[in-house]
Amino acid sequence: MKKVGILMGSDSDLPVVKKAKDTLDSLGIPCEMHIYSAHRTPDEARAWARSARDNGFGAVIAAAGMAAHLAGAVAANTTLPVVGIPCGPSLSDGIDALLSTVQMPSGIPVAAVAINGAVNAAFLCAEILAVEDPALAARLEARREADRQKVLEKDRALQDLTETK
Amino acid sequence: MKKVGILMGSDSDLPVVKKAKDTLDSLGIPCEMHIYSAHRTPDEARAWARSARDNGFGAVIAAAGMAAHLAGAVAANTTLPVVGIPCGPSLSDGIDALLSTVQMPSGIPVAAVAINGAVNAAFLCAEILAVEDPALAARLEARREADRQKVLEKDRALQDLTETK
Amino acid sequence: MKKVGILMGSDSDLPVVKKAKDTLDSLGIPCEMHIYSAHRTPDEARAWARSARDNGFGAVIAAAGMAAHLAGAVAANTTLPVVGIPCGPSLSDGIDALLSTVQMPSGIPVAAVAINGAVNAAFLCAEILAVEDPALAARLEARREADRQKVLEKDRALQDLTETK
Amino acid sequence: MKKVGILMGSDSDLPVVKKAKDTLDSLGIPCEMHIYSAHRTPDEARAWARSARDNGFGAVIAAAGMAAHLAGAVAANTTLPVVGIPCGPSLSDGIDALLSTVQMPSGIPVAAVAINGAVNAAFLCAEILAVEDPALAARLEARREADRQKVLEKDRALQDLTETK
Amino acid sequence: MKKVGILMGSDSDLPVVKKAKDTLDSLGIPCEMHIYSAHRTPDEARAWARSARDNGFGAVIAAAGMAAHLAGAVAANTTLPVVGIPCGPSLSDGIDALLSTVQMPSGIPVAAVAINGAVNAAFLCAEILAVEDPALAARLEARREADRQKVLEKDRALQDLTETK
Amino acid sequence: MKKVGILMGSDSDLPVVKKAKDTLDSLGIPCEMHIYSAHRTPDEARAWARSARDNGFGAVIAAAGMAAHLAGAVAANTTLPVVGIPCGPSLSDGIDALLSTVQMPSGIPVAAVAINGAVNAAFLCAEILAVEDPALAARLEARREADRQKVLEKDRALQDLTETK
Amino acid sequence: MKKVGILMGSDSDLPVVKKAKDTLDSLGIPCEMHIYSAHRTPDEARAWARSARDNGFGAVIAAAGMAAHLAGAVAANTTLPVVGIPCGPSLSDGIDALLSTVQMPSGIPVAAVAINGAVNAAFLCAEILAVEDPALAARLEARREADRQKVLEKDRALQDLTETK
Amino acid sequence: MKKVGILMGSDSDLPVVKKAKDTLDSLGIPCEMHIYSAHRTPDEARAWARSARDNGFGAVIAAAGMAAHLAGAVAANTTLPVVGIPCGPSLSDGIDALLSTVQMPSGIPVAAVAINGAVNAAFLCAEILAVEDPALAARLEARREADRQKVLEKDRALQDLTETK
Repeated sequence: MKKVGILMGSDSDLPVVKKAKDTLDSLGIPCEMHIYSAHRTPDEARAWARSARDNGFGAVIAAAGMAAHLAGAVAANTTLPVVGIPCGPSLSDGIDALLSTVQMPSGIPVAAVAINGAVNAAFLCAEILAVEDPALAARLEARREADRQKVLEKDRALQDLTETK
Repeated sequence: MKKVGILMGSDSDLPVVKKAKDTLDSLGIPCEMHIYSAHRTPDEARAWARSARDNGFGAVIAAAGMAAHLAGAVAANTTLPVVGIPCGPSLSDGIDALLSTVQMPSGIPVAAVAINGAVNAAFLCAEILAVEDPALAARLEARREADRQKVLEKDRALQDLTETK
Repeated sequence: MKKVGILMGSDSDLPVVKKAKDTLDSLGIPCEMHIYSAHRTPDEARAWARSARDNGFGAVIAAAGMAAHLAGAVAANTTLPVVGIPCGPSLSDGIDALLSTVQMPSGIPVAAVAINGAVNAAFLCAEILAVEDPALAARLEARREADRQKVLEKDRALQDLTETK
Repeated sequence: MKKVGILMGSDSDLPVVKKAKDTLDSLGIPCEMHIYSAHRTPDEARAWARSARDNGFGAVIAAAGMAAHLAGAVAANTTLPVVGIPCGPSLSDGIDALLSTVQMPSGIPVAAVAINGAVNAAFLCAEILAVEDPALAARLEARREADRQKVLEKDRALQDLTETK
Repeated sequence: MKKVGILMGSDSDLPVVKKAKDTLDSLGIPCEMHIYSAHRTPDEARAWARSARDNGFGAVIAAAGMAAHLAGAVAANTTLPVVGIPCGPSLSDGIDALLSTVQMPSGIPVAAVAINGAVNAAFLCAEILAVEDPALAARLEARREADRQKVLEKDRALQDLTETK
Repeated sequence: MKKVGILMGSDSDLPVVKKAKDTLDSLGIPCEMHIYSAHRTPDEARAWARSARDNGFGAVIAAAGMAAHLAGAVAANTTLPVVGIPCGPSLSDGIDALLSTVQMPSGIPVAAVAINGAVNAAFLCAEILAVEDPALAARLEARREADRQKVLEKDRALQDLTETK
Repeated sequence: MKKVGILMGSDSDLPVVKKAKDTLDSLGIPCEMHIYSAHRTPDEARAWARSARDNGFGAVIAAAGMAAHLAGAVAANTTLPVVGIPCGPSLSDGIDALLSTVQMPSGIPVAAVAINGAVNAAFLCAEILAVEDPALAARLEARREADRQKVLEKDRALQDLTETK
Repeated sequence: MKKVGILMGSDSDLPVVKKAKDTLDSLGIPCEMHIYSAHRTPDEARAWARSARDNGFGAVIAAAGMAAHLAGAVAANTTLPVVGIPCGPSLSDGIDALLSTVQMPSGIPVAAVAINGAVNAAFLCAEILAVEDPALAARLEARREADRQKVLEKDRALQDLTETK
């Protein structure tokens, strides 16, 4: 099975990024995490990205805040799908990081999720790997149904609450 | 080969969305375009999304402006990767549509590209399909190299220009 | 008497939404609350909206944050007046949710109130039901007069305070 | 049948506001238009609002730009439902006018539609009057179905276009 | 000596507005404070504004948040200079209230100070009254010089601090 | 009678600023215009401000865009009332210039009008000079009444138009 | 004399960037222009930056729009002063590019000038080179004086204009 | 060796500005700090700036919030490189202060760093002084390498952590 690479620009992003790993773990998808700064360790980030496909990776998550260059720097060095997590809180509630992440030149896309959206970054990678993996697709469908049941349960609880009042 | 579905919320989005189709065509990836409004034809959008995987689709592009609900409405009905194109110009230069597109609940991701970023939406789908398709991956690498050469040529032309002046 | 339906996208919106119910209760207007997510339980939300008029509802309040699609998803499935409460805090202090709520395509309006404006969402529904209900209109006028007296009392208290100093 | 009052703060808003009247005309709803400025003719605006219910109005549309006080000034003087149209372009693409319109104190709601959203302001008033008017509700449903068919037709045209290419 | 009227839209603005009164007190300028809501007590606000000049007022301060209509409602009813204090925190850090305050139609100006800028609202009124009052102008100059000396003292203290380290 | 000084940071602001002069002319208030840049001619701006009161000025209008320092630089050198016109279009539709103008330290107020609000800057200065000048106050009241009649005329014209249709 | 390197991310930035070269030419400072994309030709940008100091450069100007990574990518590979020009118009009038340019991690500064501020980028580099070059410093002072005289001339022309009217 | 001048508009900026001094100290660069307000002590700020070059300064850091005029006021009086630190939190997370700092007229540049970016302001000054000082340049390179090693160490620690789990 293909792996997911998870890069973050600074260890201060770890509490956010950790949720991406937990989500991938829960779906049985192997992953590897690295702290690589686009500005402090540009060579390491580049080297990792250039060999990612050959090293068995199928998708990359890159998390960064402020100038938020990491996802773009990775995308510039691989044609694997790169999912960018704009990390906040920074200025404008992180919209600056979102715009920095998403506005890439044509031909070098970055797929942005919401600010601090680590869980959905993981689900997006899972959906990408599931395109050719029916078993994983089935696990994703089951997860959706479970989430749906949770909402319906909460609604029933609310009905009970308001009725008995 | 898996197809890419391209949905748009209104025919006014066609000039933008057309570039996604052209890009996919140039990469030899089959696609299908539809005009489905999340609000005016919610049932058609839902039915299309629910059967997309069974109908041979591997990724979906959904383009919408203003409230920009289409990508989310599609993502709610499939576990295929959904790429959202926030269409503008609307308010705040389209940042409203970007935020409307990207801020999805956990478990139902939408991959946002830049506002009106139809070309990169197509490249992102190509990268997704290339995860398990080495020939397509090679075509993507070749395209990158061609883009790189174009920049270097422009730089050489600039040198000639400034030298001869 | 017609009922008001109150939907929320997540139980985390309950503390805000509860104020709408309390306000309607205080005006003697019957209501029904539900947790229905536009993305996790789209079918339940749709089914509720489609049968709302037949089930005796005269207006709907829909509260949601982030991408804030719920009000629009409901409005797409009923011609009853739909009042959207953009829930915050999210990005841009909730302006993203407000814009997501209010920018609907022509023919499918959503009436937006302020961010977290649950009390005014309830008053708006009350005003809607009062169009053909003079008794309710009279209760609304009495409430206005009471609010006016409260301000005047506070002003008198301020005068006493500054005079005696 | 109840009438809809349409107020605008300046005759420069007429091109936008005119669409509300046209929409109401097409639905067979009587209406009356006035130019009343919240700042230049505050007394006239107040007098109109105070007698609106007694004069047979069931809902009010108030359109204003910049400081956008008109809807609030009207709402302060009637308990009829007031729909505010924030008029633009002004600063921040009209978001300033939207926030000025929507952020009313508790008990005095204004129902905001999108910036320059005159058509939906009219539809919202129609939905309000239709709560107790099944014939108008049926006309609104028919209009929705017609809008839906228009989208489906456009989709079929797009299919023909891409097939024949 | 002319008085300064200080109006606020809600008693929740009192902690901010109080600083305007304290500043005027310290400059020996008489003032009068009132809680008048543009929406809940529009008639009282109007009546006060209309008689302000005759009642010996020379300038008015009006403080309000959210839709922030009070300064405009007062300015519509007097040709005395009206200084608006946009009160926050509300959305966009109060920029919404600032824009709501400052964007008045031609002929009906409001002089805006910074968000929560009660102290400068008071100084502005003092400067207005000082145009024809040399003694007050002298007190304002003395205050400036005192403020200047305070900065210079702080700079000297900083020099001592860094030298002795 | 006291004069109004009108300063602008660049001759590119003249088309906007000219309206302030025209308005003052129409009210019979003498004024003097200067081009003084806060950054290119700081000494001239300072010298003018320091002698303004002694030279017979009663209020100052300062217009500037971009960093918009001129009003603040003038206010730092006089205790006359200073009205700032934030000039646009610059970034953020001129909100940057508005914030740069209005956010002064305590004790050194600038009275901001709307972006490019030259007409209201002039009216504000007129209201300031009218505090102790009943004849000017009467001219201002007459102007208000004339503006009011213009709106009412437009409303009558609209009634005629819609009736005859 | 040290040279100034001028890099731009795309030839579409040339009309803006050209003004930096013209300004440096007018001050007698040698410079070299290159088109290097942070994403399309990352290796060339890196190689140029790494050898810039040894190749006789004393400062670097990097101009880029959208995600605006170029200045940061250059700064990551040299300890020469790097001046970033955020290029617009892009979203939010280029504020996104400004924030992307300026928010660098500690230790790797980028000096931002205004959006499209190519002239000041050149002046900033000139000031940097003038720190140890009294002749260049004298040329900069002369330029300032010339700019000052131009403003004073314009003011005199305005006085003539208003007097003769 | 040339000194760096550090000015701040208010002693409330000291906690931020202090980091600039600490950074310069750690690099062995002499500096001098002053509290000078652009509005309260404009003459002292001007006098300091005019004599800075003659007094042995090679670069200036100016920190200010709100209207943030200090850096511009200093730049208007010297042709030394001026680095502006926009201080926050103020409105819009300090973007107002950033725009106020950076948008200078042509010929009078200010080099902006990030909001509260005191450390990078110091590094920028160090890079400026290092242009003609190879020993300082070497110290800056060593600092970069140390920062790079810190990131790599953190990455190794993360690998150990995830492996042992």
